[in-house]
Amino acid sequence: MALRRRKTPMPELPTDIPGYGPLLPHRATRKGGARRSKLLPDFDAAIAACDLRDGATVSFHHHLRNGDGVLNMVMEALARRGLRDLHIAASSIFPVHAPLIDHIRNGTVSRISTAFMSGPVGEAISRGVLPTPVTLQTHGGRARALDLRELPVDVAFVAAPAADDMGNLSGSTGPTACGTLGYPMVDVGVARHTVAVTDTLMPYPVPAIDIPQTCVTHVVQVAHIGDAAGIASGTTRPANDPLSLSIADTAAQVIAASGLLQEGISFQTGAGGASLATAAAVGREMAARGVTGSFCSGGITGFHVQMLNDGLFRGLLDVQCFDLEAVRSYRDDPRHQSMSAATYAGPHVGGAVVDRVDAVVLGAAEVDLNFNVNVTTRAGGIIIGGSGGHADTAAGSRLAVVTTRLTAAGFAKLVPQVGTLTTPGATIDVVVTEAGLAVNPARPDLAERLISAGLRVRDMADLVAEAALAGTRPTPPRALGRIVAVCEYRDGNVTDVVRVAPSET
Amino acid sequence: MALRRRKTPMPELPTDIPGYGPLLPHRATRKGGARRSKLLPDFDAAIAACDLRDGATVSFHHHLRNGDGVLNMVMEALARRGLRDLHIAASSIFPVHAPLIDHIRNGTVSRISTAFMSGPVGEAISRGVLPTPVTLQTHGGRARALDLRELPVDVAFVAAPAADDMGNLSGSTGPTACGTLGYPMVDVGVARHTVAVTDTLMPYPVPAIDIPQTCVTHVVQVAHIGDAAGIASGTTRPANDPLSLSIADTAAQVIAASGLLQEGISFQTGAGGASLATAAAVGREMAARGVTGSFCSGGITGFHVQMLNDGLFRGLLDVQCFDLEAVRSYRDDPRHQSMSAATYAGPHVGGAVVDRVDAVVLGAAEVDLNFNVNVTTRAGGIIIGGSGGHADTAAGSRLAVVTTRLTAAGFAKLVPQVGTLTTPGATIDVVVTEAGLAVNPARPDLAERLISAGLRVRDMADLVAEAALAGTRPTPPRALGRIVAVCEYRDGNVTDVVRVAPSET
Repeated sequence: MALRRRKTPMPELPTDIPGYGPLLPHRATRKGGARRSKLLPDFDAAIAACDLRDGATVSFHHHLRNGDGVLNMVMEALARRGLRDLHIAASSIFPVHAPLIDHIRNGTVSRISTAFMSGPVGEAISRGVLPTPVTLQTHGGRARALDLRELPVDVAFVAAPAADDMGNLSGSTGPTACGTLGYPMVDVGVARHTVAVTDTLMPYPVPAIDIPQTCVTHVVQVAHIGDAAGIASGTTRPANDPLSLSIADTAAQVIAASGLLQEGISFQTGAGGASLATAAAVGREMAARGVTGSFCSGGITGFHVQMLNDGLFRGLLDVQCFDLEAVRSYRDDPRHQSMSAATYAGPHVGGAVVDRVDAVVLGAAEVDLNFNVNVTTRAGGIIIGGSGGHADTAAGSRLAVVTTRLTAAGFAKLVPQVGTLTTPGATIDVVVTEAGLAVNPARPDLAERLISAGLRVRDMADLVAEAALAGTRPTPPRALGRIVAVCEYRDGNVTDVVRVAPSET
Repeated sequence: MALRRRKTPMPELPTDIPGYGPLLPHRATRKGGARRSKLLPDFDAAIAACDLRDGATVSFHHHLRNGDGVLNMVMEALARRGLRDLHIAASSIFPVHAPLIDHIRNGTVSRISTAFMSGPVGEAISRGVLPTPVTLQTHGGRARALDLRELPVDVAFVAAPAADDMGNLSGSTGPTACGTLGYPMVDVGVARHTVAVTDTLMPYPVPAIDIPQTCVTHVVQVAHIGDAAGIASGTTRPANDPLSLSIADTAAQVIAASGLLQEGISFQTGAGGASLATAAAVGREMAARGVTGSFCSGGITGFHVQMLNDGLFRGLLDVQCFDLEAVRSYRDDPRHQSMSAATYAGPHVGGAVVDRVDAVVLGAAEVDLNFNVNVTTRAGGIIIGGSGGHADTAAGSRLAVVTTRLTAAGFAKLVPQVGTLTTPGATIDVVVTEAGLAVNPARPDLAERLISAGLRVRDMADLVAEAALAGTRPTPPRALGRIVAVCEYRDGNVTDVVRVAPSET
């Protein structure tokens, strides 16, 4: 008798336990039931599975940079399904994304939020193609807006160089390897759905997981997610023309004289040739002094990798690989670590990596008397970029150095007032030009150090005046028409707006 | 004139922009302001900074296993400050945590939630020392309760083998390296505050970051977080006595005959000697057939590392290193990857790693006629463990094999009804003993395969009867007194309760 199977295989339980509360008894269920694959046949299936509707927000990341194929593929699929009024929340938009313009014209897309926008889309938006103003964020501000649900995302699309059918994603594997996946790491944590798009479906589990399966809802396989050659778009080599080298040399002297060039210095530069030339000059000074730095952060290039391998720094904190040498290094060198956009630059995380950067070298389209920087528009008001991490690193670093020539294309780059205010002057410490440098009046200590070191410290007004003389074309006045872009600071407050560009610019 | 600094360095902005909405203009602020260090001098400072009060929930993890010093240190500090009625949410509790008993007696602690509890604390709770029932969770159920805020945590304390002063944490660095930090990865994502406790404060940033700084609020340095030698507590070597080897051999034959022993097989075992002996036997069969598996998951031992290095598997997915060989492998071998408890076993993540495990080999204190398994109490009702990942892997895997002897310490281990129901029989496929095996009647297909392979498939009732005959001591009846523990299934429903143990057991 005792050995017969009981009718109720579960013990009888009270309905409420003192000190524990009410309970639901477990009921015998069948084994399994959880999905063993997240693979869907195509975008249409993914769009249906995500219940994507008119007005939804879809997010993208830019680790494939100008080689990205995913944004265009997804938008084509969404347009084909007749979706309308979509909001594109892309970490950056590149020239390769020109097809977006037609999606805007057709009404598929009516809103855009991004931290950087170059090429035809920026130009078209400057001319007024988008019915609403584009929201230009900083990299850290975007992470904040996502994490705090100010920017709710319906579907995050992740270009995954490799994925398995449960959605573990790797950035450093496959023919279109792009390295770290620092930007979508934020999106996938908050999006209602995440669709990974991959051309390299690997057996479970993928090696070198960058984003774990718990963050991914669906996986779609395509022939090619993009063109790896497009990852290294823009300069990622130090400039070597005499004028750039002279500015770089001065900037390095500024850092050396600032007192920060000590054991453990942390350093960030953009990927532009002038910034990298400064990094090279700083590296030479570090080697000469026998100083080993702690880390380089931000977007990482082969040049930074070389500095790591030369022993100038102990590690790299990488939110985005700027070229294929960086991709290889991230894959092979454990000292080369990834970080999310929130960890990199979030103003909401109680201390981000940018807050530990000693010196950052930044570029500028324009700088003004108040040290405000414009990296958003060129003279005439056409959108050519946006903050990216510019405003974040300026705010976080101990020393933010802007390097710039006095003029470009005949326009003065040092101006009474910037055409668009991207990065507030309160966060910029020094501006270095070929005609000398200016120190923010808020940093008299620094000015003193630089003067003591024999550097040619000038008044910003004098540099602006000299730039005006050197310029051959007058700075166009600010436009007055409809607002086409809103420039948000990292905290979501607004630093400036961009107005529709007059047709002649 | 134009070159004088303007009084308002910011552009004038509208208060509301069509298509964007109302806005706050950025106001010039001073540079910096974010914390550049999270280091606090001691626990008292951390407790104050976290505003820890009576009744709070404090969480801990068990990667240092029986070598953990952090839970005791923190509890001592909390008790010293006179805090009362605290709720301990620990991923597991080990013999080393015996001082908890005094904290319970003194009223510092009045609630405990954990997935596993061995040693004096389990014994004392079984005797009724805790005024409320302990909540026994599964590893996946704990992750679910945390992620869904059913178990809100005020402060997560993380034993960090290495940390920097911004709270980047590494498990694989330092003298008390423990490898992956899979359990606290969940806690730190939801806790109101996270305090990292480290004996190895490294220059920023730590190499090999397991938990990024964004998840950590404070860092406290102590002399020793624990004793690395205690990490390898319990057996982590295959058993080699004839009876264990015979059971292991049968279990391996079951897996071989099940049809799952194919290219890409995924596999999990516990760290017990019998389970590892089964893994060894499976490994020999894989080698003989020329089959390469995909991954081993769960807690990882040096034995699993050896299987990886022998080429039997492509990778390891590790939530917890069970010994120092696993710690070394995690540090040095990129094929050995970490996963969070949610990724490992969460029932709430839309498919966890356990849902991709083909075959799992599990232990048992008791198994009953309905294939229900008890790994929570020993005969007499004293708490000796809990599910850990037992119920999670049984539910997720294609084939859950329980290996057990007929008797232990004179008690039958195969019984009419388990003393405590940890893992529902519906999720157990096969029970293997030295007297043959039984197949769950819900799996007639499997029974057929095993019979065809010549295995000795018996009725569970016969095995239970044989165990009863082999036992020399009668199974004590279920206790009837106050409930001292509530056993939650991975979904939070209750499988069973444990009642206060009679004094003679």
